[in-house]
This record gives sequence, C-alpha cells and structure tokens, in this order.
Amino acid sequence: MRCTGLLLFPLLISHAVKALDNGLALTPIMGWLHWARFMCNVDCDADPDNCISERLFMQMADVMVKEGWRDAGYEYVCLDDCWPSRRRDASGGLQADPARFPGGIKRLADYVHSKGLKLGIYSDVGAETCAGYPGSLDHYEKDAQTFADWGVDLLKFDGCNMKWTRLAEGYRNMSRALNATGSRMVYSCEWPLYEWDFHKPNYTAVRETCNQWRNYADVYDSWSSVKSIAEWTALHQDAVAPWAGPGGWNDPDMLVIGNYGLSHDQQESQMALWALMAAPLLMSNDLRSLCPRAKALLQNRRVIAINQDPLGRQGYRTATLGSFEVWERPLSNRVLAVAVRNKQEIGGPQKLPIVKVPGWRTCGSLCNVTQILPQYKELGVQRQRTDLAVAVNPSGVVLLTFHPILD
Amino acid sequence: MRCTGLLLFPLLISHAVKALDNGLALTPIMGWLHWARFMCNVDCDADPDNCISERLFMQMADVMVKEGWRDAGYEYVCLDDCWPSRRRDASGGLQADPARFPGGIKRLADYVHSKGLKLGIYSDVGAETCAGYPGSLDHYEKDAQTFADWGVDLLKFDGCNMKWTRLAEGYRNMSRALNATGSRMVYSCEWPLYEWDFHKPNYTAVRETCNQWRNYADVYDSWSSVKSIAEWTALHQDAVAPWAGPGGWNDPDMLVIGNYGLSHDQQESQMALWALMAAPLLMSNDLRSLCPRAKALLQNRRVIAINQDPLGRQGYRTATLGSFEVWERPLSNRVLAVAVRNKQEIGGPQKLPIVKVPGWRTCGSLCNVTQILPQYKELGVQRQRTDLAVAVNPSGVVLLTFHPILD
Repeated sequence: MRCTGLLLFPLLISHAVKALDNGLALTPIMGWLHWARFMCNVDCDADPDNCISERLFMQMADVMVKEGWRDAGYEYVCLDDCWPSRRRDASGGLQADPARFPGGIKRLADYVHSKGLKLGIYSDVGAETCAGYPGSLDHYEKDAQTFADWGVDLLKFDGCNMKWTRLAEGYRNMSRALNATGSRMVYSCEWPLYEWDFHKPNYTAVRETCNQWRNYADVYDSWSSVKSIAEWTALHQDAVAPWAGPGGWNDPDMLVIGNYGLSHDQQESQMALWALMAAPLLMSNDLRSLCPRAKALLQNRRVIAINQDPLGRQGYRTATLGSFEVWERPLSNRVLAVAVRNKQEIGGPQKLPIVKVPGWRTCGSLCNVTQILPQYKELGVQRQRTDLAVAVNPSGVVLLTFHPILD
Repeated sequence: MRCTGLLLFPLLISHAVKALDNGLALTPIMGWLHWARFMCNVDCDADPDNCISERLFMQMADVMVKEGWRDAGYEYVCLDDCWPSRRRDASGGLQADPARFPGGIKRLADYVHSKGLKLGIYSDVGAETCAGYPGSLDHYEKDAQTFADWGVDLLKFDGCNMKWTRLAEGYRNMSRALNATGSRMVYSCEWPLYEWDFHKPNYTAVRETCNQWRNYADVYDSWSSVKSIAEWTALHQDAVAPWAGPGGWNDPDMLVIGNYGLSHDQQESQMALWALMAAPLLMSNDLRSLCPRAKALLQNRRVIAINQDPLGRQGYRTATLGSFEVWERPLSNRVLAVAVRNKQEIGGPQKLPIVKVPGWRTCGSLCNVTQILPQYKELGVQRQRTDLAVAVNPSGVVLLTFHPILD
C-alpha cells in the first residue's frame, strides 16, 4: 500500500488570478458537442441522419428539450469542425456549407434559442481548421463579429495550423475580438494543449483569456483514452488544477458516455472523474438513441450537483492504495466529494476501508457518508474509526460525499 | 485501402498430424472456468459468496442447468488455481483445501455429474502452481490417478515454475499418465505459451499431446486485453491456425463477457472472434448475476453453431481494409463465416461494402447472406456485384454467413 503525499495541501492552494471577465461559465458549462460521435461526416447523401447539417443540430435541440437534458442543465448545442463552406463569402466572412446548412447559422441559432438552449460554434486560431476548412487567422475581428451577428453563444477555438510561438497572440486577439463585439460568448480554447509539446503553458494568461481550455489529447470512444486523460490530469494536477475556478476551467474533453466503447462501469468512472475535475460536461453521443442507463447516468442530478458546485474548486488525486486510486474535491459547506476507482481490470469487486481515504481525516469525529454512484445509498453517520468499506468494481468507481458533523 | 495477401490460401492448408487420441474435444469444449472472475479469492470468511469453494462451483452448476447453459452446450465446470490444500496428504496425494472443499473433489465431481455436467481441475507441470500451491512435478502418475479416481473430466495444466527446456517432457509425461488411467480427461495445456518466449513451439508435438493449448497471455477484463489476443493470433495465424481441428484446439483463453470491462459491442466482438478462431468457449463470469444481454449473447445458438462447426477449421484474418479487418472461417457445407470488425474507436457506425470481403469471391454468382450479430437478419440472395454493405459500430463486429448457391 502506497499513499502519495499530496494529502490536503493542494486543496488549500488557489490562484487569485482573475478569470476572463465576461461573466460566463461561473460553473463548468454543460451541453452537447458533435465531434467524438459525428466527426467530419459531411456525406448527407449517403448518411442523411448523421451528417453535419442543420438537421442534426435541430434534432439534438429537440431531444434536449423533450427528454429532460435542458432541465438537467445541459444548455449548449455545439458545432465542431466541418460546419463551414470551403470558401469565405464575397465579403471575406465565414459561411456555413450551403447544402448542409441551407438556413445558415443565424437560423440555426434562432431555432436553438427558441428552445431555451444556446449555440456553440467552432473555428481555428490558424489559417485552416484541423479538417482543412477556413480558419480565423487574419480574420479574428471579422469572424468574432460574424459569430456575434449570428447570435452564437460559444466559440470552440482550435489550434491546428499555427506555429506554437504565435498561439498566445492568436488566442488573446480572438478573446479581445469576442469581447469587443459586446456579445457574451463562452470562449473555449485549445491553446495549452498545443503548447505542452514545447513548454509549460502560462496558465495565468490562459485563465485571463479563456473560459475553458483543453490541456491534453482528444478523447476517443475507449476506456484507454478516458484513462489516459485522467492519468495525465493526475500527473499534472499541481500545474493545472489550481487554475480552475468560476469563469475558467480545465477541459478534459467530451463525455463519450452512451457510445460504443465504454462498459457501464467505465461510463460511471468517466462521469465521476469529470465531476471531480470540475470539467465542462459536453456530451458527444447520439441523444436520439441513448440507452436508458447511459441517460440516467448523464442526468444524475447528484453527480451534476458535484460538478456544478458553486465553490468551483477542481479536485485532486489524493492517494494511490494498491489497485485503488482516490480523487477528492472540496465542495461548498465543507462537504468533500470522493471518488474511489478500482484500477484492477480482472476479477470481481474489491473492498477499500473508508478510513483509508485521505479526506476521511477532515471529518472530525463524525461524518455523514452518502454514496452517489453506482447507486444512491445513505451510508449513515460514521465515526472516525468506522469499519465501513466500499466495494468497487474492476474499472469502476464509487462516488461518495462526506458531510462533517460538527460536535 | 490495404488488403493483406493471405486470401484463401491458408484456408486450404491443414495439418494431417493426429490429435491426441482420447476421442475428446472433437469440437471446441464449452464451459465455465473460475479464474478471470474469481481469481485466487480464498477468503471465505470475508467473502463467502465469491471465494474458491465447493459452494461456488455447486452454485454455478445449479445455474448452468437452471438457466439454459447446459442446454446451450456449456458442459464443463472448471476449477482453476487455488483449489488445493497447501500440502499433499500423508500418501503424497493432492487434496482440496479442507475448509473450502469439505466434501473433497470427489463429492463435487459427483454433484456436477448429477447435473449432467463435467468437472475440470487445475494443476501445474512444475513443482508449484502459479499461485504457489503444490504442483505436479514428480507426481504426474499419482496426480493423474487421483484426478481419475475423483471422476474429473478435464485437467488444465499450467506451466509456472518449470524450466522451459523441460516443458515438453513434463507435458508429454502428464498426457501419458492421464491416458494410462483409462479415464477420459480433456487435457488443456499452457505449454506453447511458456515456450514462445524462447522459440517457436513444436505444434506437431503439442497437438499429439494436448486437446487444447494456450499460446498467449492471460485474458483480462478489458478490451485492450481481448484486442491484444486477437492481434497476436492474427500475426501468428500461419504458425498456429493450421494445427486446430477435431481433438486439438488453439485456446485464446476465457470469454470475459458479462463482467465489468467490455462494452456490449466489445462483448459481441469477443464472441464473434472466439467463434471464428474455433476457440474453446470457457466463460469466466458470475453466472448468478449476469445481465440479460450478455446471457443472450453467450447463449446465441447461431454463434455457438459457428464455433462448434464439425469441420473444425480455425479461421483467419483475411483482410485489413482501412479501419476494418475481416476474419473468415470455412464451415461445413461450403458455408463461410465472416466477421467484419471496425477497429475505429471514435465516431459512429462505418459501412463496408460486402464485395470487399475476400471470401465473397467464393460465392460464385449467387450467395445467400445472413447476419448473425449484432442482430439476426436475413440479408437475402446477393449477386457477385451486390451493393450490400454492412454497418459496423466502433469496436464492434458484424458476424455473417455466406451460403453459396449452386447455379
């Protein structure tokens, strides 16, 4: 048994640097983003139901209202790469592909707004997007104004096709351009992701510039991908976690829950870890055909409440104990959220005594323990020397809250 | 698009070497084995429901009868490591741990037989098993006779704690010892697995000695493990596949379907690939609490029929086409079983035109196509230039049969 020495100290550190001052993303945003599920599928002749078209986003907006997603907090319907025409218009403006978005982005935004939702769009800091569509380089003001005119509520700004030494300038310029429009747009950056290959990013600048930022590789629809993101975050937590807070968040990329590559236990692990990382909850799946268990997990109001906790502190991996690892996030009202993950990928459930969780010491003499995942369960008031243990499935998680009871 | 040049030729090769002449395993055996799910859990005080004890195996036997496993063909209830006492008895014989198997193995075998099932046991060619229990080295005749006296129907003979140069001698001696008892016991070897690190095994000898043999690493409850086994098999298929046939089979290890680590699409992939590899179907899961979809998949009679085809030819990976790979297995009556696997682990289903499957050429002018997985579907009579395509989920599979129609 090995216990890493990170206990509690990082939880006390928090950077006083101001976030981007647009009043947005005071808690991590929630919504849906097309990439991991629909990628750059532009063949509407062969695959009309799944190609990147206004129809797809209107259908998602409809489902988000009808099936409780909006009410659960999922608000943004986001386009990713491959929405534009291959060419700018006569006045140099970006335009949606006319065959796939016959009403243009303005009509789509109006439709999404009429449903009480918000629209996200995508562009790139460089001359081209990752998929080779027109990027915003040399057009930051123009494109920001176009997005504002269309009524767009969020910009995901990718970092392909740009020399890394120019990323800071590009991302900052676009941030200023967005603010100058007077519209309030969430600004989602991939800036640090593209800098880590060369040096440690300047997170003071990142947080002043962006509402959320990607640090690491794209998520894939596989457990090895989700694990690698969690592992990267834990290994770099002292560098990245302190920068999270109201107005600015580390973005470990989309939730792939409800697709093809994760078992249900692994889906629960992604949901719990993203909640503890104070991550934007951007699903990328097909909401039109989601299995009931995935839907219930994504709409679990107790997990969402942890993710959306107003204190806005990002959690840390606080211990590695045999095949277990423990992640902890301090919430409002002295509550601590705890995820116990079983990294063993063979055998049956394994038990971890609750007293081995580092945060247990914050409980004082009494603590009220609640299990949120896999099933909601009141575990009752426990004393410091409790023999309570949690059983965690292989590649699964148990998500708990500790409520200290004052003597 | 790249098409590997293996097409059809390997399907014509088959080794004439005689199998172990015990009349057993004329098709791959089917059953249940405890390891991947229950491992070496010997703590019956703390975990009475899941420890390695006679109770566990009796419960599995009960469920196998009650819930249709026996009727579907799953016949062997198999002990793996950790069943014995730490010491041999006064006469030098192996004995079951008396606390966990109070009735001994004989009573357990009688119970299992009373249910119309067969009992498998485990030992090691070396002085100790992998988990440190007594091995059979210097006791081959004694242990073979003990197993025969108990009424055991299968021996899994592991290869830990033995110098690799002595493996051949040990495995052959145990094979002779088993035959000399006059009892008919399936002989499951790990001999080639432990030789591959040093040289290419002598499969002529392996097939003469064993009814099935492991070639590669233990399976884990994860997609990366299942994928690595399939990949190893494909990369070594010319070395191993021709040796499979009635009486002797390559064993890619247990089915982990119904546990924690595979999505349903990945479970279908394992089932289809194991069927095409003519693999022993030894489940390692908890049959007492299996989800209905996993149960239906494991009991799918059409997939089982492919696995159990009396021709007994092991399939090959015949093509790699972009993100797809195609596996094919010739069955009786000129039928060809085909698995199309989508290796992409992001996005939605991808389509492959059926004419790109190498085996399609064997259809002549007309072929009747049936989809077995994910759902049973008659795809009808197709001509050589059909535009039929299959849609395959990420990390999933489509399993088909082609029935040529004679003009």
